[in-house]
Amino acid sequence: MDEVPQLADALPLVASDPAWLAAALGDLDSVHADHLHCERKAAQSALSLIRSYPERADLVDAMARLAHDETRHVIQVAGLMARRGQAASYDHGDDYAAALRTAIRVREPDRLLDRLLVFAIIEARSAERLGLLAGALDDPRARELYAGLTTAEHRHRDTFLALARDAAPATWRARAAELAALEADILARRAVVARIH
Amino acid sequence: MDEVPQLADALPLVASDPAWLAAALGDLDSVHADHLHCERKAAQSALSLIRSYPERADLVDAMARLAHDETRHVIQVAGLMARRGQAASYDHGDDYAAALRTAIRVREPDRLLDRLLVFAIIEARSAERLGLLAGALDDPRARELYAGLTTAEHRHRDTFLALARDAAPATWRARAAELAALEADILARRAVVARIH
Repeated sequence: MDEVPQLADALPLVASDPAWLAAALGDLDSVHADHLHCERKAAQSALSLIRSYPERADLVDAMARLAHDETRHVIQVAGLMARRGQAASYDHGDDYAAALRTAIRVREPDRLLDRLLVFAIIEARSAERLGLLAGALDDPRARELYAGLTTAEHRHRDTFLALARDAAPATWRARAAELAALEADILARRAVVARIH
Repeated sequence: MDEVPQLADALPLVASDPAWLAAALGDLDSVHADHLHCERKAAQSALSLIRSYPERADLVDAMARLAHDETRHVIQVAGLMARRGQAASYDHGDDYAAALRTAIRVREPDRLLDRLLVFAIIEARSAERLGLLAGALDDPRARELYAGLTTAEHRHRDTFLALARDAAPATWRARAAELAALEADILARRAVVARIH
């Protein structure tokens, strides 16, 4: 897949504040509890795209496969929490994702493009932070899990970018750059918290 | 699993009207298009239970695994439709499931029990009808797919029944019988349509 680096180049995300990793390592219970819901919501988002765009066979197949991956991740994160003797807790929402979603335009075909790009950004940011955890966790099994999840979320980012390119070949790169700049702005305004986003 | 037959005995569903299979075989495109959304919604329902009851580790694990199964089914049904040269179409809703859901009580712990039993009934009815299709389809690959899905949906029914038993050991059987009777009544009042439910 020679094109994959080119796809990812369209979405230049800023690096996370180093304070994020310190906060995450300082409260891993909160990170894992949030992470479980992130994986659940990623699966739900993919299924919601199938609901909205069932006539697009490529999207349906890609999103079903992505949701299949994300549900495996839910099983894996739940297993990690069980090993740590930690119960999951209620989802406290995700104002990061909510802020990004405000940029999704209402009218088609803009709406599809924006949904795909927002999901690509969330996957890309998740991949960056899961990768930071993979490099810093003490527990070897958790490190291995997070390294695998990092690879998967990068692949998911590229899945969304390929669908965005196919949906709007002439405009997807410019819109990706706009939304990446918005994401940098959202992150800069947020407090650093022990959550994935 | 000696207990599985005992669990299923708690949910005695009436047999489908033979006219259903004739209607389904007469319009397989509609059946497959509906089926794709049924599998998607089954995954979404399982994920919604994780959102509602994250503190129940057994439920979280079981529902993540069930959603993982159902997302595989979405991939498989989408593949079947692709082989048939059939695009998916919008979900026209499911008034059968909507009618069942009106029986879900609002207050906990009744609400959890009712959600689990309603999902068990939907899985049981799906299993019955996918099994009828498995025995009647001409295409050997589709028959094999539907036979496998029948087994899976029976297993899912039992997953929901086991969770219902664990959630309300003293009352789950009586409530299952009530909801099974309601389901028979809902089916009897419905027109026969070329859809899974």
